Amino acid sequence: MTETPGVAESDRNRPGEIGMPVDALLTPCLIVDLDVLERNITYLARHAAERGVRLRPHAKTHKSPDIARLQMAHGAVGVCCQKVSEAEAMVRGGVNDVLVSNQVVHPRMIDRLVRLAHEARVAVCVDDAGNVEAISAAAQRHGSEIDVLVEIDVGAARCGVPPGEPTVNLARQVSESAGLRFAGIQAYQGSAQHVPDFQRRKALIDVAVRETARTVRQLDAAGLTPEVVTGSGTGTYALESASQVFNELQCGSYIFMDADYQRIRKEDHQAFDDFANSLFLYSTVMSKARPGRAVCDAGLKAHSVDSGLPVIHGQPGVRYLQASDEHGVLEDPEDRLALGDRVWLVPGHCDPTVNLHDWLVGVRNGSVEHLWPVAARGAVF
Amino acid sequence: MTETPGVAESDRNRPGEIGMPVDALLTPCLIVDLDVLERNITYLARHAAERGVRLRPHAKTHKSPDIARLQMAHGAVGVCCQKVSEAEAMVRGGVNDVLVSNQVVHPRMIDRLVRLAHEARVAVCVDDAGNVEAISAAAQRHGSEIDVLVEIDVGAARCGVPPGEPTVNLARQVSESAGLRFAGIQAYQGSAQHVPDFQRRKALIDVAVRETARTVRQLDAAGLTPEVVTGSGTGTYALESASQVFNELQCGSYIFMDADYQRIRKEDHQAFDDFANSLFLYSTVMSKARPGRAVCDAGLKAHSVDSGLPVIHGQPGVRYLQASDEHGVLEDPEDRLALGDRVWLVPGHCDPTVNLHDWLVGVRNGSVEHLWPVAARGAVF
Repeated sequence: MTETPGVAESDRNRPGEIGMPVDALLTPCLIVDLDVLERNITYLARHAAERGVRLRPHAKTHKSPDIARLQMAHGAVGVCCQKVSEAEAMVRGGVNDVLVSNQVVHPRMIDRLVRLAHEARVAVCVDDAGNVEAISAAAQRHGSEIDVLVEIDVGAARCGVPPGEPTVNLARQVSESAGLRFAGIQAYQGSAQHVPDFQRRKALIDVAVRETARTVRQLDAAGLTPEVVTGSGTGTYALESASQVFNELQCGSYIFMDADYQRIRKEDHQAFDDFANSLFLYSTVMSKARPGRAVCDAGLKAHSVDSGLPVIHGQPGVRYLQASDEHGVLEDPEDRLALGDRVWLVPGHCDPTVNLHDWLVGVRNGSVEHLWPVAARGAVF
Repeated sequence: MTETPGVAESDRNRPGEIGMPVDALLTPCLIVDLDVLERNITYLARHAAERGVRLRPHAKTHKSPDIARLQMAHGAVGVCCQKVSEAEAMVRGGVNDVLVSNQVVHPRMIDRLVRLAHEARVAVCVDDAGNVEAISAAAQRHGSEIDVLVEIDVGAARCGVPPGEPTVNLARQVSESAGLRFAGIQAYQGSAQHVPDFQRRKALIDVAVRETARTVRQLDAAGLTPEVVTGSGTGTYALESASQVFNELQCGSYIFMDADYQRIRKEDHQAFDDFANSLFLYSTVMSKARPGRAVCDAGLKAHSVDSGLPVIHGQPGVRYLQASDEHGVLEDPEDRLALGDRVWLVPGHCDPTVNLHDWLVGVRNGSVEHLWPVAARGAVF
């Protein structure tokens, strides 16, 4: 590790070295408990295999080709990405099958998308006729063949055409467009994933499944049978996989989990414990100048508070009270923390937290086993 | 710009090229209106000069040595940083005077701090006797001389020793420690900066000024007259500069401003218009599949919502409703937006938003004049 000014770009913000004990790491940094990560990966892989559905985990969570390859070694067919530049980072890191589960609109990014299809199997989602024309023109210009999925809006009210006839019409256009192959549909109910109550979560997915099934029947009738019916997420995967309609799962957060996902409940109101928390923000007490308080070095530039504050792990009585840019104020009523002590935080929301960091530190038995670059960090295009 | 896989690390996530028209930029990206930026810089520089106080702007806002050098060209004495690695990025970029306005606790980071003092004038804040010992030992080990400021807590209840006697005691320890020079005190009232009502904001600063003045008198009496009395921020700078107690201002956000700072008011309840908004998140409509709605490509990975959602600039009637990781759902009641249209967002909170991006695109007269790397992005150590 270069620790002097003039640090190599590729070592930027590197918190330590492979083989180092955890407590020697610079903080704040993101630690991945490798035993838990592997259990999460194998649990969902087994579930998908048992239900006969494909698993295409979402790489927007980890942004790491190393973790993507690990998921594929456990049976995943490829990964999802949200951005072309994220997909490029995956392909550069050895991933050979990527679905951009999102719309691509900028002409230069459409060019990059279809050019990426020269190096890997690439698919993309559409919800607009003009966009289909633009992608077809680019594919022809670059001599590419690209899989296209029609995204349908099954209740999230974000992207996607309405189910039924509008989907059939767009699918027909895709199937008739040079350079494009109609591969199926994407029906992701994003607003259901974090609903705490199981019955309310299920009710939203019931609607999504019904609308998706109806659309699949109409596509069948039009001679446009979708090969892929993809969607789902960590909060609802067992519902889609049991639906007989979806044949591909896109879960992302399941590998890491976070404080927000810890709030969702199962059918019997027990904690949703299918997956365990493997991602921690490792932080140091940097000020202990007031009784009852401590200040740690993990603020808004080290974790995202959009879904709530982090939860302190393994320090009963200590609570994360308030985040400013570079500080976290902790309630420490019994003054158990001392300057330099480490605290383990469970981030409120894993995906945007990972996107703040350049490295994921894979840890087992108290020492660093992997230093995985967050290769697609900041890949917003 | 390399647009293919195999992109050079230093070009990562680069949104465009110098000379390009703005509407050719990839989105989402951060645009800086250079005319406004320069007005903000000169306005505060003139204010500080007229009041006879030093200006040491906070580089945690922009994380750009290019902007830091611009501020110094207009009279700033140096910059503040919150982290040693942020300070290293500034020094590498030509800044020769840095105050780490924060505590540095990790032994390796203390080493890096004192080593940096071989290349630039470096100062740091302390609020703990053991930490003073550690920095002194490191300074001796590395043959460094480093300026140390005692941070005092004047109401923010974050870092800092209490004003008065505890400050005098720590200042005495610093002044008697080899390798350290007692340079003064830092008294930053961070929790006052964003208080909307002027009188409430002023009441908090009145307390801070009183406590700081009392502490300065006690230091004088102990023969420890502080050369530097530093603090203040964008929301309260005129109060500290008029106080006759503070002789250095640390404002950061004033160069960019943000939606949260737009909510604060002046004494006459008018908008706080000392500085204008120069920072915009440039975004594209990527889905227009539902009447009354549009979806843009700027979500939680492109801006920070900790202080509220972004505000749409120059599109009356359009409102940013909801952020997910890679999407922003817009209310567009009259369906004025079309697929591919650009929207200009004023981020809710400038500092953590800048920290998400690798580039600041400086724009004048509709074209790109600067591409400034966010050199200290992710510099959390």
